[in-house]
Amino acid sequence: LRRDKETTLNAVTSRLAEYVLTARLEDIPQDVRKEARRALVNYVGCALGGSRHEAMDITLAALGPLAGPATAAILGRAERTDPMLACLLNGISSHVHDYDDTTPRNYIHPSSPVASALFAYASGNRVSGAELELAFIMGFEAVSRIGNATYPAHYDAGWHSTGSIGVFGSAIAIGRLLGLSQRQMVWAIGLAATQSCGLREMFGSMAKSFHPGRSAQSGYLAALLAQKNFTAGEKALEGPRGFAAVQSSEYDLARITDRLGDDFELRVNAYKPFPCGIVVHPTIDACIQLRERHRIDPQAIAAVRLRVAPLVKDLCDKRDISTGLEGKFSAYHAAAIGLVKGKAGLGEFTDETVNEPLVRQVRMRVESTGDPAVSEDGVQVEVELADGGRFRIELEHSLGNLKRPLSDAQLEAKFLDQSGVLSPAQARELIAACWRLEELDDVAGLAALAVPAA
Amino acid sequence: LRRDKETTLNAVTSRLAEYVLTARLEDIPQDVRKEARRALVNYVGCALGGSRHEAMDITLAALGPLAGPATAAILGRAERTDPMLACLLNGISSHVHDYDDTTPRNYIHPSSPVASALFAYASGNRVSGAELELAFIMGFEAVSRIGNATYPAHYDAGWHSTGSIGVFGSAIAIGRLLGLSQRQMVWAIGLAATQSCGLREMFGSMAKSFHPGRSAQSGYLAALLAQKNFTAGEKALEGPRGFAAVQSSEYDLARITDRLGDDFELRVNAYKPFPCGIVVHPTIDACIQLRERHRIDPQAIAAVRLRVAPLVKDLCDKRDISTGLEGKFSAYHAAAIGLVKGKAGLGEFTDETVNEPLVRQVRMRVESTGDPAVSEDGVQVEVELADGGRFRIELEHSLGNLKRPLSDAQLEAKFLDQSGVLSPAQARELIAACWRLEELDDVAGLAALAVPAA
Repeated sequence: LRRDKETTLNAVTSRLAEYVLTARLEDIPQDVRKEARRALVNYVGCALGGSRHEAMDITLAALGPLAGPATAAILGRAERTDPMLACLLNGISSHVHDYDDTTPRNYIHPSSPVASALFAYASGNRVSGAELELAFIMGFEAVSRIGNATYPAHYDAGWHSTGSIGVFGSAIAIGRLLGLSQRQMVWAIGLAATQSCGLREMFGSMAKSFHPGRSAQSGYLAALLAQKNFTAGEKALEGPRGFAAVQSSEYDLARITDRLGDDFELRVNAYKPFPCGIVVHPTIDACIQLRERHRIDPQAIAAVRLRVAPLVKDLCDKRDISTGLEGKFSAYHAAAIGLVKGKAGLGEFTDETVNEPLVRQVRMRVESTGDPAVSEDGVQVEVELADGGRFRIELEHSLGNLKRPLSDAQLEAKFLDQSGVLSPAQARELIAACWRLEELDDVAGLAALAVPAA
Repeated sequence: LRRDKETTLNAVTSRLAEYVLTARLEDIPQDVRKEARRALVNYVGCALGGSRHEAMDITLAALGPLAGPATAAILGRAERTDPMLACLLNGISSHVHDYDDTTPRNYIHPSSPVASALFAYASGNRVSGAELELAFIMGFEAVSRIGNATYPAHYDAGWHSTGSIGVFGSAIAIGRLLGLSQRQMVWAIGLAATQSCGLREMFGSMAKSFHPGRSAQSGYLAALLAQKNFTAGEKALEGPRGFAAVQSSEYDLARITDRLGDDFELRVNAYKPFPCGIVVHPTIDACIQLRERHRIDPQAIAAVRLRVAPLVKDLCDKRDISTGLEGKFSAYHAAAIGLVKGKAGLGEFTDETVNEPLVRQVRMRVESTGDPAVSEDGVQVEVELADGGRFRIELEHSLGNLKRPLSDAQLEAKFLDQSGVLSPAQARELIAACWRLEELDDVAGLAALAVPAA
């Protein structure tokens, strides 16, 4: 990582603004466009899956009375609201189960902040599917590239980059749809930068899912203000008091603009098979495999020993937990459900499951060691039974990681597993509309399919 | 500064929440309560003075169409809107001229984020004057203490602490009025912490005034969500990924809770005589004095040499400027208007004045040197005339600083100078209501006096 290219990089914000305004869908490779639609299928499914979460009801109860004209749909809910509140709600629902996509290069969930703003906008304004897809790609790429430029320092410092960097993506995506001038886009990026926030201290509480929602909202707001010529600093990314300098002790701004329009980060986007922190996926996957291979009786487990990457130890080291949310970031719970349940769907991260006596008993017998020799995609697990029997497994790559990506059919199955708020027929129609996105004259029809009957 | 008291300070957030919920107005010394009213007189005057700024019209045009039920007043404007947008607008108007109060210990403007939220709330909900005054004191003290605990590292890193710390004050002030439980207040502080943002890179643009507005809004939002039990991390200030650890390289959390309820930061609040960055006040004051004492003809000025504190050099080093906003943070412009105009009111920080040929000519002849021997309240100025004549002045404390505070009468004069949107009679009635705050049954009446006839 270097801080030295300052002279050549003193126009990063302006260069990014220019690209996101001038890019054309027809210049973007078909595989990237396809991946955008896969990301949106995954996103919409997650938004449906989280749409009944308590955090959604609370947010609607607290903020609904202050909402403006109800021109926007909320994915998965029959209520309508103003587009700002819809941003927040879509962001919460799509992230609250930690089931949304992740870019393994920087651990950001880029789709939630970007698509949450886009669907809030598109459900109340005429936007074609091709326009939305392009705006999504622009927002996604900006988030991923700013993430790469500041990873790992920004994340390590304690920022939840899905929020603190996601805000750039929503500003850019909405700014593109609003047809901002280049200078307005620079201001929108500035207004996004100056709303960059979200602390990892909130992990394990509802506030984590607030982050992509608030960043969707803040980016949308930035674009609206910039459209009316609300001015902002014009070197928001690269300036001496700008985002990179203030919020990342090391950074490489060249990664924001190098090969822009040639390389696409959507190609390295990952979809989770399990609704929890991606860094515990290898543990779950390995424990499910161990259980199946050796027909392990969970009652007989005396000890479970995990060797995990140091980051996993750092992020997911809480064992004595009582809520489903905490379970999503506990390597101990991950091992326990893999061994006890043999699966890890939404049902394995409820308060009830976390407090089940057998799950708790196994969880308390898990030990975890951080080991720099273990990759972040991998894990080593040893299970010791009461009779002294020992079983070991070493996993290099977990299901859902880039070496073992979910197929379209697996993405559809994940979507359908989460779409219980819709009838099966409506859910299938909605998936089909997502795949046909580029052909749609108006995305409002797709958004309407994501809304259950009142 | 120390990082070592962690074990005794691992309950700072909870302790702060407890205090702000249980404090009683009758336990707060009369001089502090008086100072709160002085701060509010100053605040309301500034909000009136900025209420016609272009940034206000832009914000209303961009966001007005999305606003909710218009239950809240906007200080200085006839339009009504929802309380969230009113927070943002009050924050912009009261800070846009950089004329609001400042705590010299940490350079925060604490009243704007706190009072902007309070007036938005109180104009649509029944709140007595005593309740509002107490909530204001709680918010002000929290902001100032968190500011002291993280100054100078947080500010030096590039955070505009009026926004990034102001958000705690609005959350606490509104949370107090909402009657949150202690746990809810802890969540409100958490939701505030995770919305802490605002980059100094925005200085010189409209986005600077956006900061207190957005922090008023974000804190209000935090309190509303917490009231409905939206959960957040419970060690938002002191946790390993919390506000202090992430956003300040050095800090002393004890300064948040030491002598809480005994010492009050309102006693060290300063009111500006000039509507610009407080660090250039000594320069203006000194140049006005030089001009008067030596009857200097600005046309005859050949050179002006400033010796300023290094911070002033750091913050206000832009000479080739073209807008009034830039002028507010230019030590060169500060010297020029002092010498050319002999005063510095709102009229000296317009685009027109910044571009006046004589002001520009003098400004371009100013040189500035950072000197650690000069205090941040002081300045040394030398003026050299074309005929070789030299005049010098050395100032230790500028008007408006704590050693030379504005009197009540000077505060009133400053208020009246900014209240042109109201009739003189209404302006005087409004000042009187501010002074009588503790006697008011309902602050809505005071807020109504701050609204011009439609």
